[in-house]
Amino acid sequence: MQKPLILVTNDDGITAPGLRALVRYMKEIGDVVVVAPDSPQSGMGHAITLDNTLYSKKVTIDLENGGNEEYSCSGTPADCVKLALQEILSRKPDLCVSGINHGSNSSINVIYSGTMSAAIEAGIEGIPAIGFSLCDYSWEANFKTAETAVKKIAEEALSNGIPKGVVLNVNIPKTNNEGIKGIKVCRQARANWKEKFDKRINPMGKDYYWLTGEFELLDKGEDTDEWALSNGYISVVPTQFDLTAHHVIQDINNWSLNE
Amino acid sequence: MQKPLILVTNDDGITAPGLRALVRYMKEIGDVVVVAPDSPQSGMGHAITLDNTLYSKKVTIDLENGGNEEYSCSGTPADCVKLALQEILSRKPDLCVSGINHGSNSSINVIYSGTMSAAIEAGIEGIPAIGFSLCDYSWEANFKTAETAVKKIAEEALSNGIPKGVVLNVNIPKTNNEGIKGIKVCRQARANWKEKFDKRINPMGKDYYWLTGEFELLDKGEDTDEWALSNGYISVVPTQFDLTAHHVIQDINNWSLNE
Repeated sequence: MQKPLILVTNDDGITAPGLRALVRYMKEIGDVVVVAPDSPQSGMGHAITLDNTLYSKKVTIDLENGGNEEYSCSGTPADCVKLALQEILSRKPDLCVSGINHGSNSSINVIYSGTMSAAIEAGIEGIPAIGFSLCDYSWEANFKTAETAVKKIAEEALSNGIPKGVVLNVNIPKTNNEGIKGIKVCRQARANWKEKFDKRINPMGKDYYWLTGEFELLDKGEDTDEWALSNGYISVVPTQFDLTAHHVIQDINNWSLNE
Repeated sequence: MQKPLILVTNDDGITAPGLRALVRYMKEIGDVVVVAPDSPQSGMGHAITLDNTLYSKKVTIDLENGGNEEYSCSGTPADCVKLALQEILSRKPDLCVSGINHGSNSSINVIYSGTMSAAIEAGIEGIPAIGFSLCDYSWEANFKTAETAVKKIAEEALSNGIPKGVVLNVNIPKTNNEGIKGIKVCRQARANWKEKFDKRINPMGKDYYWLTGEFELLDKGEDTDEWALSNGYISVVPTQFDLTAHHVIQDINNWSLNE
């Protein structure tokens, strides 16, 4: 039987330890092709490259693990998926996995996430897709914690299929192996970032800013991804790209828009 | 009575004719402050600037119309909104409008849209927000068609309020004034882009690509934004940033994730 074809991408760039870990785990499940950004793309949201040229290059990384078919790309995570599907892969992949991100993409972070935008792009193209993130921003994060769950979730997605119009947003708490209590299917917690701009003066005397901020949880529900993560569970949020707020269509129909 | 404070932004850049038109219309309704990108940011999705410095500058544009309080910003549309709320505006705005975009943001385009990411960012911060787009990519597009509806929708949003967690995605068909049949509240049509990469060779002999594509409508519903636009209506899609696919949580709970 043909092994499943798995497209691996991310937003931290093709050499990120989180991607290297994901490639190792996926090679136990299927045939892996990597198409990932040649440089970090965090916070890129669902950006695509319209006004600029795109470069792609076959690269050899990770020879000590037998090597893989890998391509680096000058674009965003969403560009990588488009390029992979259209120009690089010889057949439609059975699964697209993105990550493992160095840092959380739970709650409102899904909106800003390059990791999730790659998964969503694959989902739009009708490919089962999962974004994986470890809630540890360190480059030397311990991805071992994630291994069992990442393989389990990928295998379940391959055998059950993911409902149309949906991709999975998986976040793994920062803990040791024993600390993980299980996997919970959740909703996205309501939250936002309380921005703080760090205002500085450059050597030429001009003001500039760094964007920083604090995460502000606005949700006390125990069915959310934030609750799961704080309580030692891996969170799985089914995430959709039909953004219609169906429940308020009637409300807005009561406005006097056509008078 | 204090006039409403309206924050105006966009993704085509602060000098775009679509933004200049929106500023003129909003000045009839409230006090306007403009914070917009200093260069075009189309296709930026919900990107934010994490690894780079941000610059902002008070600028004077449009003196013949009495001038406005305006700031250009080196960042993305989402950055502009964050910076406006945190550093520039003296009080919370009553409304944030983004656009008028030169080109459609209907259907799946909402995912890639810088115009809508600015509106969504404001929505996340609890500010009523609307993204406006004219389905005409030309820089010389005729925004006059949009005037009546844009003012009407903004006024209705100010008087009714927009439900929490929702922003409006408004698209205006390319037609003359007589061609507009009315305003319809819709759902986002299912669609995707059939990518085509235009592969070329640069003067140094290296392959590169331009991303192009064709819009592929996968939805025959008559309650969609695409149907409305094709039939001469302005479409209003209530758009949410809780991306949870609540309807499939039960499905995925049936997977053997914890066995």
